Amino acid sequence: MTDYLANAIAIRRELHTKPEPGWMEFFTTARIVKELESLGWTVHLGTSQIGLDQVMGRSEKLVEENIARARKEGVSDKMLKRMEGYTGCIAEWKTDKPGKVTALRFDIDCVGVEETDDPGHKPNANGFRSCHKGFMHACGHDGHTAIGLTVARWVKDHADELKGTIKLIFQPAEEGVRGGAAQAASGLLDDVDYILGSHLALMCKSGIICPNPQDVLATTKFDVSYTGKPAHPTMSPELGRDALACLCTTVCELRAMTPHGKGMSRVNIGKIEAGEFRNVVPAHGTMQLEVRGATGEINDYMADQALRIIKGTALAYDVQYDVVKAGEASSMSNDEELIDLVTEVAKKVPGVTQVIREMSMGGSEDYTMLANRVQAHGGKSDFFIIGSDRPGAHHQKNFDIDEKSLGIGFEIYKGCLEKLNK
Amino acid sequence: MTDYLANAIAIRRELHTKPEPGWMEFFTTARIVKELESLGWTVHLGTSQIGLDQVMGRSEKLVEENIARARKEGVSDKMLKRMEGYTGCIAEWKTDKPGKVTALRFDIDCVGVEETDDPGHKPNANGFRSCHKGFMHACGHDGHTAIGLTVARWVKDHADELKGTIKLIFQPAEEGVRGGAAQAASGLLDDVDYILGSHLALMCKSGIICPNPQDVLATTKFDVSYTGKPAHPTMSPELGRDALACLCTTVCELRAMTPHGKGMSRVNIGKIEAGEFRNVVPAHGTMQLEVRGATGEINDYMADQALRIIKGTALAYDVQYDVVKAGEASSMSNDEELIDLVTEVAKKVPGVTQVIREMSMGGSEDYTMLANRVQAHGGKSDFFIIGSDRPGAHHQKNFDIDEKSLGIGFEIYKGCLEKLNK
Amino acid sequence: MTDYLANAIAIRRELHTKPEPGWMEFFTTARIVKELESLGWTVHLGTSQIGLDQVMGRSEKLVEENIARARKEGVSDKMLKRMEGYTGCIAEWKTDKPGKVTALRFDIDCVGVEETDDPGHKPNANGFRSCHKGFMHACGHDGHTAIGLTVARWVKDHADELKGTIKLIFQPAEEGVRGGAAQAASGLLDDVDYILGSHLALMCKSGIICPNPQDVLATTKFDVSYTGKPAHPTMSPELGRDALACLCTTVCELRAMTPHGKGMSRVNIGKIEAGEFRNVVPAHGTMQLEVRGATGEINDYMADQALRIIKGTALAYDVQYDVVKAGEASSMSNDEELIDLVTEVAKKVPGVTQVIREMSMGGSEDYTMLANRVQAHGGKSDFFIIGSDRPGAHHQKNFDIDEKSLGIGFEIYKGCLEKLNK
Amino acid sequence: MTDYLANAIAIRRELHTKPEPGWMEFFTTARIVKELESLGWTVHLGTSQIGLDQVMGRSEKLVEENIARARKEGVSDKMLKRMEGYTGCIAEWKTDKPGKVTALRFDIDCVGVEETDDPGHKPNANGFRSCHKGFMHACGHDGHTAIGLTVARWVKDHADELKGTIKLIFQPAEEGVRGGAAQAASGLLDDVDYILGSHLALMCKSGIICPNPQDVLATTKFDVSYTGKPAHPTMSPELGRDALACLCTTVCELRAMTPHGKGMSRVNIGKIEAGEFRNVVPAHGTMQLEVRGATGEINDYMADQALRIIKGTALAYDVQYDVVKAGEASSMSNDEELIDLVTEVAKKVPGVTQVIREMSMGGSEDYTMLANRVQAHGGKSDFFIIGSDRPGAHHQKNFDIDEKSLGIGFEIYKGCLEKLNK
Repeated sequence: MTDYLANAIAIRRELHTKPEPGWMEFFTTARIVKELESLGWTVHLGTSQIGLDQVMGRSEKLVEENIARARKEGVSDKMLKRMEGYTGCIAEWKTDKPGKVTALRFDIDCVGVEETDDPGHKPNANGFRSCHKGFMHACGHDGHTAIGLTVARWVKDHADELKGTIKLIFQPAEEGVRGGAAQAASGLLDDVDYILGSHLALMCKSGIICPNPQDVLATTKFDVSYTGKPAHPTMSPELGRDALACLCTTVCELRAMTPHGKGMSRVNIGKIEAGEFRNVVPAHGTMQLEVRGATGEINDYMADQALRIIKGTALAYDVQYDVVKAGEASSMSNDEELIDLVTEVAKKVPGVTQVIREMSMGGSEDYTMLANRVQAHGGKSDFFIIGSDRPGAHHQKNFDIDEKSLGIGFEIYKGCLEKLNK
Repeated sequence: MTDYLANAIAIRRELHTKPEPGWMEFFTTARIVKELESLGWTVHLGTSQIGLDQVMGRSEKLVEENIARARKEGVSDKMLKRMEGYTGCIAEWKTDKPGKVTALRFDIDCVGVEETDDPGHKPNANGFRSCHKGFMHACGHDGHTAIGLTVARWVKDHADELKGTIKLIFQPAEEGVRGGAAQAASGLLDDVDYILGSHLALMCKSGIICPNPQDVLATTKFDVSYTGKPAHPTMSPELGRDALACLCTTVCELRAMTPHGKGMSRVNIGKIEAGEFRNVVPAHGTMQLEVRGATGEINDYMADQALRIIKGTALAYDVQYDVVKAGEASSMSNDEELIDLVTEVAKKVPGVTQVIREMSMGGSEDYTMLANRVQAHGGKSDFFIIGSDRPGAHHQKNFDIDEKSLGIGFEIYKGCLEKLNK
Repeated sequence: MTDYLANAIAIRRELHTKPEPGWMEFFTTARIVKELESLGWTVHLGTSQIGLDQVMGRSEKLVEENIARARKEGVSDKMLKRMEGYTGCIAEWKTDKPGKVTALRFDIDCVGVEETDDPGHKPNANGFRSCHKGFMHACGHDGHTAIGLTVARWVKDHADELKGTIKLIFQPAEEGVRGGAAQAASGLLDDVDYILGSHLALMCKSGIICPNPQDVLATTKFDVSYTGKPAHPTMSPELGRDALACLCTTVCELRAMTPHGKGMSRVNIGKIEAGEFRNVVPAHGTMQLEVRGATGEINDYMADQALRIIKGTALAYDVQYDVVKAGEASSMSNDEELIDLVTEVAKKVPGVTQVIREMSMGGSEDYTMLANRVQAHGGKSDFFIIGSDRPGAHHQKNFDIDEKSLGIGFEIYKGCLEKLNK
Repeated sequence: MTDYLANAIAIRRELHTKPEPGWMEFFTTARIVKELESLGWTVHLGTSQIGLDQVMGRSEKLVEENIARARKEGVSDKMLKRMEGYTGCIAEWKTDKPGKVTALRFDIDCVGVEETDDPGHKPNANGFRSCHKGFMHACGHDGHTAIGLTVARWVKDHADELKGTIKLIFQPAEEGVRGGAAQAASGLLDDVDYILGSHLALMCKSGIICPNPQDVLATTKFDVSYTGKPAHPTMSPELGRDALACLCTTVCELRAMTPHGKGMSRVNIGKIEAGEFRNVVPAHGTMQLEVRGATGEINDYMADQALRIIKGTALAYDVQYDVVKAGEASSMSNDEELIDLVTEVAKKVPGVTQVIREMSMGGSEDYTMLANRVQAHGGKSDFFIIGSDRPGAHHQKNFDIDEKSLGIGFEIYKGCLEKLNK
């Protein structure tokens, strides 16, 4: 095992014990910043790396609770103050030689799944199980962050061989595609010539690299809230307006939306709550949903359909509603130059057994929001998959990664930097 | 205004500022006990007045949170210890003369409704608005408790004129009909000859007394929880089992249950929550519901229908479920002797303009669980309505009572005690 | 058995074999007219007894089919021509003596229920089972008509003892409350001083008469049609608008309408059809529904709620819809004078064991539309129940009447005529 | 225009005026047989070309009605007798020279869509609009049949140049994928070495040929019937079991089935009807649905999910149900040898501008049932798309084909026969 791989595994396991959901990654961000600054990177923190008007799906109340937890877990007040309530960071390494600006992006948040109790599950067997009840790195972002910090170490170790500028984007709130648009809006990427990002596992087993994944879905996330009127349910139900009933009917209709013939169209209603007390006609409700589409057009078709259903059903129940956009990602458009570069580099990385140019991925990524910004300024982008055997599907309680894939991921980024900035 | 009425109004307003939902009435119980003990009553507190196996719809977690709040609001550790986590109390006044055992019952909890901001609302105008956000005495139980404590004062004042034993039942958790069965199961009422209870307002305006309300509904409350399987909603939705979808479909079906031809049949789903994260197939859900019926038979018909729908729909969605009974009340059966007594007494009370023997009430009351216990041991029961003008319906944010009705209620109880125990 | 009872039973059994649904009673009307004219009554037929603009829920296509069947079953072309496509009739007997105008009303249509095969069912055992597949006199209107024709015979037999005018209303399409408004609008009842109507069985066993039934529900019937857009369900579903899905969601919502606290409120969706072919997105749908309420106010509340749900859900599905009122009845208001008359007469009728002034009935009757018209012109009305044991509930396949009740019904009408017109 | 193209257009227009849905193609079959026999083909008709136990989705009642119509439209009793109630035919041309057995398949039925009134629609403008109300060749099978009969003519014209055997399969009931399995089960294809089939238009514009369409969906069709219990909806609704409500809830759940992550999964509920009369609790219902999947596995997943929902919801409503399989097709597997042959031939056909080997098709085809049978016996199969401009999507009222594509289709079949049987 190389020192770099060992470094990646150690960081990944540490982060795995402290999973934090999107916009709540205070411990994680502090850990990243500590590492980066000890290596000599310049780090943009807090609102300097966030376009505030593009922040989506962030709850001030949960932020406060999670800051409190991070404080308990040892994050200093000074560090928390630097974060200004906003997680993630963008680190910069300027060599003194002219050259291209290359950005690498790593996402850092977890999902809301309770980790399995199965003693055979590696994080249980090896003692790095999640300490945060109800939350788990069940999507591999702990590994992404670990690769990013290992690349950071390599850059420092080989600084005198490099030219141009390297930027590392540690993105908050990728789950729910909430953080990408905000970091893009910071403007810190507007000078970037090349941007690369990746995901572990997904549809690729260990040893496989896919430099141009297909079927990356455009998506829009909505938060919906309902306001009805309370009433006594037997004495005067006619005075009430049942927000809970409206919400449940809407859920049934949303799940039954008409699909699109030209490509994948999806909806998920992930979280709801409604009502106050058992014996009162429910007067409020909230719902978190997402639509997705193979293309922006299909995603828009689904979003329009959802909004029409929400409106019509609220009318049917005479209930007031409010819709807020809580996340957004577009479909993916990789550039040939970088697809070819990743392909070329990957083929030489030990452990890579196969480079499959195109495979269906099927999820969404707000890396696309960062890539769109870079491409809009003339830069180029590629997002690739680093294969990794996994015992369970993403977002399931027995998800895990093959840690050897951390080494492969690191080597590909390293190889690309050697081509682009050496 | 008599001193007793002034006393009742003062207590009612104090309690109105600190509404506590069922099983959480720690401040309220402490206030009651303080009053009772200062007057010389013997008070049964904690588990001595509760049949633990009949406790329904009590959340240990919420109990802890509410104990903490009560402590902040000045309830002593000693008092909290005496309560043993269980609210309500049964007070006893034994005269030294032989005589009947008469029990009077007052319920003490509030509902989960946010009080109106309307400056014209009397609790706002007169400075006794609820301090507990999201909770309000919007059903008049603050008034009930105030009447009970005023009766307690009168008994002390007139102790030497009385014979037999008087018991005052301050019942927790009437909303949701959760507390009655438990207090009945304590056995403390098994020697009771007469039991009386009442409700303010409902279908009666100020000045009207109804000694034998009709259409008091039998009811059963259920808590339902669902367990599905999480999954990624676009990459592998087929691995998930959507507990949220199952719950919402069940809600739609429950609200559409076939009514009964022989009398009122009702269902209310008052509170739901489901799902974990927007982009995960939801793996859990919970639902609080109630069914009601004009008779026990109709209520059972509705309960059976609900259970069948819950079972069948869980099968349709391949989702696991669990149902727990969380509350229960039967239909009402008042005894002629006490109906006549209340009628006779009420007619002489100043302010009473009309005694209407039978009127439709339309709600449920777990006073029926206490009455059933007393009647099963040969005692007699009556439950009557004390009319009170109210600006809004029960359980609505602008509900209020006409405080003069507190005096009328007190006078009726006083008059009955004078007939039964003097 | 009196001759009159024998006459009633014979006619009832004959009609039982040829049940015809509302507006389709061509055989039945022909049979009635034949009887009436043979007895010397003047009969208003066809459009002379129908206010065309108040005709509700009549299908021209079904009319044609049922005329064809009636012709096959022996109704002459001449008779069919006299009917002008409209069933029912109003017969008149003018004595030459001055006196009151008394109207008696009998409804003549059947319901769409397939009669039981049970050999013990009396119509099976005695050979007068329905010959019209899918249709059955499962509500007793065969008996009503038989009573009416027996009264007609009695009037003829006792013509010289009578004074004033007697009108017999044989009303079509009571099921669905479609025919009453139209006959009322004919104007033929505007001179009526007294109107009487009745129903067999319902909540009364043989021997019981209820002269002032309660809970007769106001009701409105609606026909709803939907127009969506067809499309291929996998290649281009997004081009379709699914009328079938819209309809089914609407049904689920309608069945779950919020009830009213002040009295019975009901909805029934009795018939639907939608869609064209299995593999085409459905482009049309139709639905027959009814709402009911204990009062006109409650019925209006339900109707408004239904219309709001239909509108909102159509919006949610982007489907066009059309709503037509297909039937209407109001709640019931009997006059004391006639309630007392029926009570007095009934008490003397052999076989009547009990007259219970008020009992809950629970259905709807468009007799109310006729009564409203008479009362609006200063006349008085009463609608009473003639008890009859029945093996099954109304509208069930094993429904039957106790034929002795036909005699009791006849005697009550006879007795009233003797009081009013002798 | 060649004579063959003129022949195809004339036949297509004639057939377009008399569209007949699946299993009802009596006029169409008679027309085909007349043509084939006049050319000298041996024709297998009636049950000789149908495996009776594999017949799906055929209604005896509709068959009778459509035979009656065909008789009215001039089909002789003799011809109808030969058909034995089963439409479609398999024609055979044995040369006297040894050689391969090649089968060509053409489907002949229409869809249940009412043709547009738009005067610009070519069938309106040129006088060959559908004479069968509510039915239309809106999928191009009129063109398929016309190509088949033109090939039949060419074979006769060039019989002496050919060797081996040629079979022409005129398949009934392709819509709903009902007829393929039955013709396959006849055994008449078990000696076939090569089978070819095609579809006009779909995703290909005029001039494009796609010899290996992708995303041809496996599918299963189900007919579901429900039996509840009738009751009076206000007096005794509790005695009823509402089949209509059960059906509508099931529809809502079916439309909301969880999709599969590995490929397209679809459901369509195309036709429903339920209930008897507006004021009776509905006691019956029927539903026609289909599921589809990108693979047999996905289709099975959808079918299993549908059956589970039907079962669970029936349990929830205490309603009996029955499910019958009404159609079936598998996913498609073309053989390289024939893909290459069609490619090679197509490239030389005048009017063909582009041969695109793979394109997404997105529908289902029970050609797959015939191909499966041939492939199971060692034969080879290809199904290709013949591009055709069309003003509207398939199954929409303004669908039409570009008649020049009939010539292209004919030329490709001709070219293949020249390679395989010359």
